Amino acid sequence: MTNRALYALILAGGSGTRLWPYSRRRHPKQLLPLLGDRSLLQATVDRLEPMVRPDHVLVLTSTDYVDAVRAQLPRVPAQQVVAEPEALGTAAAVGLGVALVAARDPGAVMAVLPADHVITPPAAFLGNLVQAAELAADGWLVTFGIRPTAPETGYGYISLGEALVGHAAGFRVAEFVEKPGPATAAEYVAGGKHLWNSGMFVWRADVMHAEIGRHLPALAERVDELAALAAAGPDAFAAGLGAVWAGIAVRTTIDYGVMERSDRAVCLPAEFAWSDVGSWAAVADALATVPGDPAANVLVGPHVVAVDTRGSLVLARGGRLVATVGVDDLVVVDTADALLVCRRDRAQDVRQVVAHLVDDALTEYL
Amino acid sequence: MTNRALYALILAGGSGTRLWPYSRRRHPKQLLPLLGDRSLLQATVDRLEPMVRPDHVLVLTSTDYVDAVRAQLPRVPAQQVVAEPEALGTAAAVGLGVALVAARDPGAVMAVLPADHVITPPAAFLGNLVQAAELAADGWLVTFGIRPTAPETGYGYISLGEALVGHAAGFRVAEFVEKPGPATAAEYVAGGKHLWNSGMFVWRADVMHAEIGRHLPALAERVDELAALAAAGPDAFAAGLGAVWAGIAVRTTIDYGVMERSDRAVCLPAEFAWSDVGSWAAVADALATVPGDPAANVLVGPHVVAVDTRGSLVLARGGRLVATVGVDDLVVVDTADALLVCRRDRAQDVRQVVAHLVDDALTEYL
Repeated sequence: MTNRALYALILAGGSGTRLWPYSRRRHPKQLLPLLGDRSLLQATVDRLEPMVRPDHVLVLTSTDYVDAVRAQLPRVPAQQVVAEPEALGTAAAVGLGVALVAARDPGAVMAVLPADHVITPPAAFLGNLVQAAELAADGWLVTFGIRPTAPETGYGYISLGEALVGHAAGFRVAEFVEKPGPATAAEYVAGGKHLWNSGMFVWRADVMHAEIGRHLPALAERVDELAALAAAGPDAFAAGLGAVWAGIAVRTTIDYGVMERSDRAVCLPAEFAWSDVGSWAAVADALATVPGDPAANVLVGPHVVAVDTRGSLVLARGGRLVATVGVDDLVVVDTADALLVCRRDRAQDVRQVVAHLVDDALTEYL
Repeated sequence: MTNRALYALILAGGSGTRLWPYSRRRHPKQLLPLLGDRSLLQATVDRLEPMVRPDHVLVLTSTDYVDAVRAQLPRVPAQQVVAEPEALGTAAAVGLGVALVAARDPGAVMAVLPADHVITPPAAFLGNLVQAAELAADGWLVTFGIRPTAPETGYGYISLGEALVGHAAGFRVAEFVEKPGPATAAEYVAGGKHLWNSGMFVWRADVMHAEIGRHLPALAERVDELAALAAAGPDAFAAGLGAVWAGIAVRTTIDYGVMERSDRAVCLPAEFAWSDVGSWAAVADALATVPGDPAANVLVGPHVVAVDTRGSLVLARGGRLVATVGVDDLVVVDTADALLVCRRDRAQDVRQVVAHLVDDALTEYL
């Protein structure tokens, strides 16, 4: 790392049910461990530890989770775990983070990282982060691009432009492409010029502040107010946040609101393996101990007995014994009060189960 | 029923683990319900209720289960639930039952019935029982034969001989055939002259007593001693059973020890549907609400959400919610401390799981 003090803005407000029954409304994905005993949020902060001091970590979450986040991150000062009064999209969240960093060090480089991604190995991530911070220090808005491994239609893609002169690793962004159709996605994978948009960014706070001013001026006024509140101290900030937040009319993503419109956007191809673990199939892929071996199982739990079982994920952190016999390509997720058994390639349809629970007023299981 | 007072000897000593994790060493199959709230043992006694008075029901079980059996059958006098000091095979068990019945009514007809079979509908069973009791009153040893629905190699078969004159429903037994190979079993099913040996019998106590004397004379001496003990009253019986039992050297089944050797053996083809529910696949077949429909699921539990699920059994009596998505021909058995997920046609391999538990000293799950 350079001598510049890096900040990190961790986005930890998600509340999805795609990993039901493990993730719940009260226990969202980012607060849960998959392997080991550290939650995805904790792993995200752990991963940054060699480069980002705990008092340079900012976490945005919802009011429902703020206490749990503070409990999970005891080394991060409590006032740096901020509850957004209402989720307004990542543009507003980034604006808030920019304000908080700018109040302390306007020229600081900050990384923006979702709290619920799986990234390995840490060293490759740190190496990329060093490169990104150098690009950011020069005024670029850096987004990490992930080399696609499949024609996913659920992700945004980044079309790579020219390589940056003097920065071997970076490319200008030719275009951000929203979720493409299957044929287009297949072309992207084959062509090698399109990367997945990971939703992870690195930029200088003052540069992003100025870009918000250029592309989202209404939001920029609120960011100025938030920066003034932050400069007035934690109590003033806590007292004033709600009123400023209520005045934000911009409800968009930072990708759409700023990155697509800016001529400073660059993409750094990631050297690390990445997953948003957005479905049980993605979890199975991300945790595979033998990458690329479709017969490999991922068995998590104190007692898992797998007899003639292939390509399956068993997540049994509740302590019960789980036995599988003669099954292939299955996802078994065992929790204290609910169990899921799902064909791996049908993981997207877990939402149908959740819809059933809503329809049948079985809200205790949501 | 005729004016003769029918007795029933219920064999309730089994301790198998083929229905693991639902059945355990401490909670064997016969003491558990599958559907509804009555255990298989209770259902066995319930089914007899129109024809057998509770004080004519005798239950043999093991010392481990005698208290549970008495608790499940409050209307059966406690001294008629007898713990065999050691399991010696069905010949000794039948000898004990014959002694107990003979001490009260030597000429009485008695049915011998395993406690862990599923039989439907009850009326068809009762109708067959009336026919069997009439044959037994005439001195025949009656065994119920089950029309085979598949070339099972795990059952004994009965080769039917001539129809009994004057008893349209009964046949002489030409031969008892031990577990045949697949080709032979297929011939049996196609030929229509072989029935499964259900292990359910009806005979007069004095006739079986005499047949034991003819074919198993060493056992017959012990049966005489047991009958004398039983005639001396419950206390004398309880005090003396152990010593007599220890003197029994015969360890065989009643099928092999007596039925195969007797010229009084007849077979009554069952009009009822029968299953020994000896595997999860058999349970799924026995409980199928739409017989013959391979897409039909059997879903047992307070909250089972089955999305695009076919041919599967979900047994979730523990109260937890179970959701399945996109799975076919699966068995899911959920209990308080252990879970099984098994392909339906691999149900026999549940024993491999049990072997793992033994090997790994996970005896709490056995």
